[in-house]
Amino acid sequence: MQGEIILTGTELMTGQVAEVNARYAGRRLHESGLSLQCITMLGDGAPLFGEVLHRALGRSRFVIITGGLGPTDDDMTVAQAADVLNLRLVQDEAMLARMRRRLEERGFAWEPQYGKMALMPVGATILDAGRSACGFSLKYQDVWLFFLPGVPREMRQLFESGVLPVLTAMAGKTGHLAQRTLKLFGKMEVEVQQAVHALGKDLEGIEVGFYPNFPEVHLTLTARGPEQASLEEKLDQFVAALSREVGEVLLGTDGAPLEELVGRHLRRQGQTLAVAESCTGGLICHRLTDISGSSDYFQGGVVTYSNQAKMDLLGVAAATLEQQGAVSPETAAAMALGVQKLFHADYGLAVTGIAGPTGGTPSKPVGLVFMGLADPNGVESRRHQFPGDRDMVKTLTAENALDWLRRKLLTSPGNSG
Amino acid sequence: MQGEIILTGTELMTGQVAEVNARYAGRRLHESGLSLQCITMLGDGAPLFGEVLHRALGRSRFVIITGGLGPTDDDMTVAQAADVLNLRLVQDEAMLARMRRRLEERGFAWEPQYGKMALMPVGATILDAGRSACGFSLKYQDVWLFFLPGVPREMRQLFESGVLPVLTAMAGKTGHLAQRTLKLFGKMEVEVQQAVHALGKDLEGIEVGFYPNFPEVHLTLTARGPEQASLEEKLDQFVAALSREVGEVLLGTDGAPLEELVGRHLRRQGQTLAVAESCTGGLICHRLTDISGSSDYFQGGVVTYSNQAKMDLLGVAAATLEQQGAVSPETAAAMALGVQKLFHADYGLAVTGIAGPTGGTPSKPVGLVFMGLADPNGVESRRHQFPGDRDMVKTLTAENALDWLRRKLLTSPGNSG
Repeated sequence: MQGEIILTGTELMTGQVAEVNARYAGRRLHESGLSLQCITMLGDGAPLFGEVLHRALGRSRFVIITGGLGPTDDDMTVAQAADVLNLRLVQDEAMLARMRRRLEERGFAWEPQYGKMALMPVGATILDAGRSACGFSLKYQDVWLFFLPGVPREMRQLFESGVLPVLTAMAGKTGHLAQRTLKLFGKMEVEVQQAVHALGKDLEGIEVGFYPNFPEVHLTLTARGPEQASLEEKLDQFVAALSREVGEVLLGTDGAPLEELVGRHLRRQGQTLAVAESCTGGLICHRLTDISGSSDYFQGGVVTYSNQAKMDLLGVAAATLEQQGAVSPETAAAMALGVQKLFHADYGLAVTGIAGPTGGTPSKPVGLVFMGLADPNGVESRRHQFPGDRDMVKTLTAENALDWLRRKLLTSPGNSG
Repeated sequence: MQGEIILTGTELMTGQVAEVNARYAGRRLHESGLSLQCITMLGDGAPLFGEVLHRALGRSRFVIITGGLGPTDDDMTVAQAADVLNLRLVQDEAMLARMRRRLEERGFAWEPQYGKMALMPVGATILDAGRSACGFSLKYQDVWLFFLPGVPREMRQLFESGVLPVLTAMAGKTGHLAQRTLKLFGKMEVEVQQAVHALGKDLEGIEVGFYPNFPEVHLTLTARGPEQASLEEKLDQFVAALSREVGEVLLGTDGAPLEELVGRHLRRQGQTLAVAESCTGGLICHRLTDISGSSDYFQGGVVTYSNQAKMDLLGVAAATLEQQGAVSPETAAAMALGVQKLFHADYGLAVTGIAGPTGGTPSKPVGLVFMGLADPNGVESRRHQFPGDRDMVKTLTAENALDWLRRKLLTSPGNSG
């Protein structure tokens, strides 16, 4: 069963934004055993749209169309499609009422051109009408058509809730499917691939996809067959074998993000955390607090850019800053102990370094980072030298600091899971 | 003069790699005043290739084809194209000799299938024969065809040396190009469009693109004509007129991010900032410190999730927390004053709210956020009710807080720019 995607958006033709929607859909369809034969990108309201859609209808079983559903003049997808399909456009009253309500809730005025967003070809079904994202599906002769917004977050929501279930049900006869997504941190993609291939026998009947997802490597595992339980067992066996092979490099077995794994360990052990950041400037706290319920174990943090703040808030000694410098193992350790005490936390995590592009010296170059980790028994520090620009140094520092804490918690006496 | 791109590569259809070649070419062509009307992606050796190339030849003045030029069985682009063009393939002896030599230099053995890489349609010209990358161009009737490798580094080399010069020479008569990107915050996309259209006369000869970039709206302006200086002047006039129309909604005129604009104002006024975050969990500090040199004006911040931390670090009164609650205008104001004092800063910015999905009550629902802003003369607070999930509430809170500070700094007596 072949399908295709048509993306509209002038920003895609001028290289202004990276294409992410077809990539997302392509990956999810592939994981589900469905194939794309063609992806076409066109500008907003492109005259070619009609021709491209017409060809797609003649050769594909499903066509996913993204973009051009908005209220502005250059949003012409629905009108163009209705023309090709020779279907009348009707205004959906429920959709219209919902849009009015949502605008009011947010304190925005109704504008006449919003009415356009409730226009759909006769016979269309609104996708996931409970949310704010617009989209609809339409069966046209033998072909399923899906119209989705171009905004990636909305596109993904509707794709998962309204597109993938329909298509996998259509393709259902092909048998059962089991899948896992694994995240790994601490090995290069090539090393992960070698580790996977080394598992020869366990790997039989499993399709593996490798996705570098800086600074992690993500793996997708897919097994297909007549019986669900044996597929799940096969994947469980493979994950266990891979875990033995790569150890702590495997970040859990359910694809949870690193900051969530740290939170689970802390919650299980009934312990709390505080964080002091210099070069990461708040990124570690931001990641930790992205997890709902993090207030149960995350006490808080400080961003101490200046030496004065390191002394005032964290009690780092003036002598340490003068003699060892702000970027030193001694300062990192003192910051970790200081923030642990300040927030009455069980663990204190601290980073101090030079994110660049300025501020580096021959003895302390850009990318030099020290981390400190205080636990109930004492404090340790670590040195890293990271490559890349400011953004990359912040990203690598946050990931390594959180991973250090994860590994520490994994081996702590309080860990029972 | 319209053109198109055909990309081949199964890894593009399965989402395994991000598309970068068309994005690069699209940007470079757009900068040079050349337009793409269609980008098509197909799997390796896809049966559709012939049909897609045939259509492209009928409607475009140039077609750039990437991928499928290698030695393996799934590299079929050249043979498929020769078939559509009805041209015989010939082996280029010079190319063959060069490939043998390069393999020897690298210590690799010659394999018969490498011979395939020197096959080209009759009439083709090797692109940049001095390098290792393979590629060629071909004029077919009225259409320029360019065959480039899929490896991004090689594709870019040949695009710059062998494609862009040919196309810009062809399009030479079309003249000069001026461009701007503008960022706006505080109006919906529809309102921005109304404001733009209201500028009727100033808009003449300017192409405008609208790009929702949550929570901002971005605009691209393009003007083409025979003389660069008058194009720049036309865009400057339009930007000035739009600025008069939308006022502070326009985030500067050079496309700098909001956190950089805040930093520029602080730097110009010689003033400093400290931030206290509850529901945003470090995101505001993270954004501010993404700007190189932010340590000149950003003193630091605290993430105070618990009431205890709000009292201990920021001096929020226990009575305030008890009587008004942690999510209240009084607490937001006290946090702003507290963090201003703690870091000896000129400005103190604070947010406290309920990011969800848990923690909401009927009187204080998820998305309710209070912000406090302390300046040298006093403190103010504001109330917001944001829609969406945890991620959206964090994003909207950070954007609104930074924008409030930007507007405050714009109108402060110390602002001279």
